[in-house]
Amino acid sequence: MIHMEIKVLRNVLEANDALASENRRLLREKEIYTINLIASPGAGKTTVLERTIDGLKGEFRIAVVEGDIAGSADAVRIGRHQVPVIQINTGGDCHLNANMVRSALGDLPLAEIDLLFIENVGNLVCPAGFDIGEEIKVVILSVAEGDDKPEKYPLIFEQSSAMVLNKLDLMGMVDFDMEKARSAARATNPELPIFELSARTGEGIEGWLEWLRTRVKTGRPTPRA
Amino acid sequence: MIHMEIKVLRNVLEANDALASENRRLLREKEIYTINLIASPGAGKTTVLERTIDGLKGEFRIAVVEGDIAGSADAVRIGRHQVPVIQINTGGDCHLNANMVRSALGDLPLAEIDLLFIENVGNLVCPAGFDIGEEIKVVILSVAEGDDKPEKYPLIFEQSSAMVLNKLDLMGMVDFDMEKARSAARATNPELPIFELSARTGEGIEGWLEWLRTRVKTGRPTPRA
Repeated sequence: MIHMEIKVLRNVLEANDALASENRRLLREKEIYTINLIASPGAGKTTVLERTIDGLKGEFRIAVVEGDIAGSADAVRIGRHQVPVIQINTGGDCHLNANMVRSALGDLPLAEIDLLFIENVGNLVCPAGFDIGEEIKVVILSVAEGDDKPEKYPLIFEQSSAMVLNKLDLMGMVDFDMEKARSAARATNPELPIFELSARTGEGIEGWLEWLRTRVKTGRPTPRA
Repeated sequence: MIHMEIKVLRNVLEANDALASENRRLLREKEIYTINLIASPGAGKTTVLERTIDGLKGEFRIAVVEGDIAGSADAVRIGRHQVPVIQINTGGDCHLNANMVRSALGDLPLAEIDLLFIENVGNLVCPAGFDIGEEIKVVILSVAEGDDKPEKYPLIFEQSSAMVLNKLDLMGMVDFDMEKARSAARATNPELPIFELSARTGEGIEGWLEWLRTRVKTGRPTPRA
């Protein structure tokens, strides 16, 4: 029984990885730089995305894939920023998989996109295990969540190419030790770039945008996943 | 292939449910009231638990099972409050299961416990699918996470017997519409008791403690799960 479970799980992951590689090949062929955004529920993924779109849409043609268990509230928010957006509902699954993303890519004008953000389901655990064909993963942590999160959920911090520390406007209102969070994240990923910002107020957003500009323009870094 | 996956998943869930029923039978036999605490990473589960222990430990003999992917920081925090605590590390799984809890119960002095809190892995999705033998589930949402969460993660709000709205001290600093959150939660669970409080400052904690007192003293409500 246990043996069969493990075998089926391996088959599922292998099938996912094969589809993820196909997605990545297609996205690179179309010269689209793709970012898989991962965070807990309520860390501010959509708000960070809205600020990022507003900051970069004059320079790059941006599109978004929204992943949620249910509903389309985030796609509606993103749609207001005049970029193409596709909503995926996983119907219960705690992460996007490569097959869901493949379907979404079929509905996007790939020839007219430079930068694609895929906002994963709100979860610090499951999305780390599933390659969806992205170029890089970026993890967002809010200061309201506490400085112990990189230690408690190490895999996603290890796999990410950058970390956004959001809700900087709440510092002082919450018990969050910035140095502790930074060193916990760097214990799993020593070179991790960290951007402290408030998507709500806009504070600190420019460093993050500048990093993104460079990544998108210089092309394809080795994915960490 | 797909057929086999579904069959294996069903077997896993059936095996889990059988073990969960055994856990529940044991816990009831020992007259232990067991609460499965579920929330996103950083919603404040451990801080709520610390306040709750301090508020009730003169009246009930309390114990705690801590569930985390990695580490034992939460068990150390709970241990400072002089109650028995067992740390489970799932090693990657995004939820506790009944078998993990069964092992932990073997290490607890069951004859000397009235009220057992099981703090699940930080996740609004996966723990909702796995009965671990609890009497009731309680979901904790922090106002920093946003008022749209009950709509986006409906299952856990549907299954919970109460909702704690934590970090009330941040109201006004975050965009959180209390009425919207309450009505979204009650759209999936019309009778859901909701406790607005700040575990950090202690504000509002008494209503939650009073509800717990009544539940523990009057015994065994029908589990919703």
